[in-house]
Amino acid sequence: MNFFTFFTYLCSMNFSSKLLENAVNEFSRLPGIGQKTALRLVLHILNQPATDVQRFSESLMKLKSDICFCTVCHNISDQVICEICTAPKRDKGLICVVEDTRDVMAIENTNQFNGVYHVLGGLISPMDGVGPSDLNIEKLVQRLQESHVEEVILALSATMEGDTTIFYLYKKLKDFNIQISTIARGIAFGGELEYVDEVTLGRSIVTRVPYERSIA
Amino acid sequence: MNFFTFFTYLCSMNFSSKLLENAVNEFSRLPGIGQKTALRLVLHILNQPATDVQRFSESLMKLKSDICFCTVCHNISDQVICEICTAPKRDKGLICVVEDTRDVMAIENTNQFNGVYHVLGGLISPMDGVGPSDLNIEKLVQRLQESHVEEVILALSATMEGDTTIFYLYKKLKDFNIQISTIARGIAFGGELEYVDEVTLGRSIVTRVPYERSIA
Repeated sequence: MNFFTFFTYLCSMNFSSKLLENAVNEFSRLPGIGQKTALRLVLHILNQPATDVQRFSESLMKLKSDICFCTVCHNISDQVICEICTAPKRDKGLICVVEDTRDVMAIENTNQFNGVYHVLGGLISPMDGVGPSDLNIEKLVQRLQESHVEEVILALSATMEGDTTIFYLYKKLKDFNIQISTIARGIAFGGELEYVDEVTLGRSIVTRVPYERSIA
Repeated sequence: MNFFTFFTYLCSMNFSSKLLENAVNEFSRLPGIGQKTALRLVLHILNQPATDVQRFSESLMKLKSDICFCTVCHNISDQVICEICTAPKRDKGLICVVEDTRDVMAIENTNQFNGVYHVLGGLISPMDGVGPSDLNIEKLVQRLQESHVEEVILALSATMEGDTTIFYLYKKLKDFNIQISTIARGIAFGGELEYVDEVTLGRSIVTRVPYERSIA
């Protein structure tokens, strides 16, 4: 038995039931969930009352069939236009461009942003076959043409894909008479200097801010 | 804001959609899955084709409604009597008592056991409100009365609950003319002595075996 067959042998599980095997296979398709975790979850579900399992199953079906996306900002929503876009107190002249709905939730939790959002639905990533046309970039350009916007904040991840997307967006938007900004990068609050990577530390020295501004 | 309100504030998530919130809540009820992981899983599912989501949802419904347990060994099965109990090559006089179906799978993977199983469906655990009557113990006694069994192997976890259950089973079974054994405990293969806990190491010295037997 060579290493590969031995590995496949270790990974294969002998299920006593086809139904059990199907459910485990479905769960192990989810990201970060292997066969052993999937089996643990399925056995947990099997011990739940039938009504709970039905509710779980129905919530998944409804999620896929009934959910819609806000026609303005493309965030996940139950209405045609989401609550943030319809709120009268929100500053419609300030658009924060984010990757997905998780980023909207993260920024909303800070209570520091009073503008509206634009959800791209991903980042440009040639490795994963995601190009600019797969994202809501044209709709952002259209939105800027149709309404009066003063500032666009590009709040994307500080990764290769995030930086590529920021650069692409900058080229697309720079001819509009709109201020384009990115969120500040540097050392996290509570972070100890000795554990910070060199790139972040180096950039945070180069882009240092006057002390008066840092406590504003 | 005291610590508790701050903690609740950190844990609460502002979902942009009720459907999304429901699905995340259902997922976060599973063991070992928090709200953030649940959200990641739900957003992954949302990106899948509708047919995949339907198949996932249906596999859960079918699992709960259609699955049955072997009437002999109480393992999860698609038939009234499972494949192991019907296999003619299996030694029906040797019963291995285990906690649940995961243990059956683990022992089957070793290819070292040719008897049949009896799945208890749990361990005696007063802390969790699980008593002997909640397990398939009476059915094991009945099985021993009705058929000719030579040996019962108690293959339960080496925990407080496992030991309690083994002791209870031993008292129940000792009047039958059947050999009762437990699986061997000691140092795992590949284990280094310096990292083994004192109890295991001490017991493994006391219960040492002749070298000829250990390589048999």
